[in-house]
Amino acid sequence: MRTKNKEIRVFAPATVSNIACGFDVMGFAIDMPGDELVLRVSEKPGVRIVKITGDNGRLTYNPEFNTGGKPILSMMRAFGIDCGVEIEIHKQMPLGSGLGSSAASAVAAAFAMNKLFELNLSESELLPFAIEGEMIASGSLHADNVAPALYGGFVLIRSYHPIDIIKLDVPKELFCSVIHPHIEISTKEARELLPEQIPLSTAIRQWGNTAALVAGLLKSDFALIGRSLEDFVAEPVRSRLIPGFAQMKQAALDAGAIGCSISGSGPSLFALSDSRDRADKIAKSMQMALNTFKLGSDLYVSAVNTQGPRILNCQTFA
Amino acid sequence: MRTKNKEIRVFAPATVSNIACGFDVMGFAIDMPGDELVLRVSEKPGVRIVKITGDNGRLTYNPEFNTGGKPILSMMRAFGIDCGVEIEIHKQMPLGSGLGSSAASAVAAAFAMNKLFELNLSESELLPFAIEGEMIASGSLHADNVAPALYGGFVLIRSYHPIDIIKLDVPKELFCSVIHPHIEISTKEARELLPEQIPLSTAIRQWGNTAALVAGLLKSDFALIGRSLEDFVAEPVRSRLIPGFAQMKQAALDAGAIGCSISGSGPSLFALSDSRDRADKIAKSMQMALNTFKLGSDLYVSAVNTQGPRILNCQTFA
Repeated sequence: MRTKNKEIRVFAPATVSNIACGFDVMGFAIDMPGDELVLRVSEKPGVRIVKITGDNGRLTYNPEFNTGGKPILSMMRAFGIDCGVEIEIHKQMPLGSGLGSSAASAVAAAFAMNKLFELNLSESELLPFAIEGEMIASGSLHADNVAPALYGGFVLIRSYHPIDIIKLDVPKELFCSVIHPHIEISTKEARELLPEQIPLSTAIRQWGNTAALVAGLLKSDFALIGRSLEDFVAEPVRSRLIPGFAQMKQAALDAGAIGCSISGSGPSLFALSDSRDRADKIAKSMQMALNTFKLGSDLYVSAVNTQGPRILNCQTFA
Repeated sequence: MRTKNKEIRVFAPATVSNIACGFDVMGFAIDMPGDELVLRVSEKPGVRIVKITGDNGRLTYNPEFNTGGKPILSMMRAFGIDCGVEIEIHKQMPLGSGLGSSAASAVAAAFAMNKLFELNLSESELLPFAIEGEMIASGSLHADNVAPALYGGFVLIRSYHPIDIIKLDVPKELFCSVIHPHIEISTKEARELLPEQIPLSTAIRQWGNTAALVAGLLKSDFALIGRSLEDFVAEPVRSRLIPGFAQMKQAALDAGAIGCSISGSGPSLFALSDSRDRADKIAKSMQMALNTFKLGSDLYVSAVNTQGPRILNCQTFA
């Protein structure tokens, strides 16, 4: 393993999770935004986070409590790597946006470790380390951001114990419009809004839709995908936290979206459609609807990102 | 419309519904058993059930309260058919078996009407009439037997309001073993066992499986189909009504089934596998396990029946 004097810079993508009906079991990666992470072998022993940008000073430099640091520490222990490493984390996406910001950092870290130290681990072997990192931020075990960020594409998490990840092919013409309103919602708070019990009749409607969404994706049936994008569990309670939710959703549908719901625990919304042009138009329509609430926002338009994390740069230095 | 002096004999298949994780939203048709129904134009006005066999005298001859009679009455009213008709119902499958016996009669009736009077109705146009018939027996609106019996194949009911039926292709090598233990369970009683509320965490596990089952079917991934055949809602409570349930299920899995659960509300069990030979072996293994409980049983082994109802005979008489 020739790693001395080597550094790697990687990117891991943002993700849309829940996908309306697929609460806690579905997510997909998008092209942007995402996080960058630099991992560098250092002569100084120990694991040190040496730089964090884009977080407005909110993230800790203690690697044990940092979503990017934790996977690196755990992997070094697991694989007996005892050299010094330096980490830079460049947040290029908002925290608490519902776009899997912590997952992106955790996946970037696990992916960078795998490449820098040539561990040749598979996605399924990397997943537990990335999940460990993400748990620091979310406080709960869920993989619906980490898995799509790591595997790329659209993933289904059939089971958590044992973890069972299924990659689903999606139609090439499927595009996603994301609006990130400039407010912040903590995943933990958004979780606390959810009921502990739900009526069986509601659960049946929800799993009718989760099953139908998979059928729609695999059959490239856009109308069916659209009909399936109904959420009877999280959206009804969480949408109240998002100013202008109803107006943005209506604007997306009016502009031709086949469906629209909350991304993760919000406040971002995603809408799906069948062309990039339409997706652009939908994003702008959602933004216009939000403008009346005097809230700023960012827009992202993307196909489903099938690649997942990628190496931006890898170099050996003197 | 030339219907005078004409009669038609049709068959509609038994169905396996719920399919473990797909409670109330999934079902598939099998080749046998099934019900036969004869519909005959009569000179005597009115709708009369003139013969019922195979029911041990349990079904009513009043067409308004008979699952086969009701769809015929409703369709005659809806389409202004005012000639006399005679109905024969030949139950060739056990009542209260969990194999969609009432659905088979209701579908046979709607299908026979459509053919005899050349109404040219589509499956989706026939469905409400068949559902109406089935509701007489089950007391609740559910389409997970009626829809597969009518459409054939494996169907998903995404939504009931409005009704939304999705046909799913299944691997050709998918075979089903059914054992019908000689006890009877009423659908209504089995429904009353179910909780009105379920934990959100349980619901999430269930919809992870429903989504994954669709993925497994459409990708012809038998291992995934098998992993998805878990039921956290109905099986845990309903299996207690079935003597030897645990032993039959274990026998099925030991004999190579990829999964096994209750068909409909029981007492029948179904098991899925990847060849007819294996399916035969599985059926016999389940029967052997049940023998120790001194309970008789019937066995049925079948591929998924993609045809649905069919005409057995159609004739014009003097």
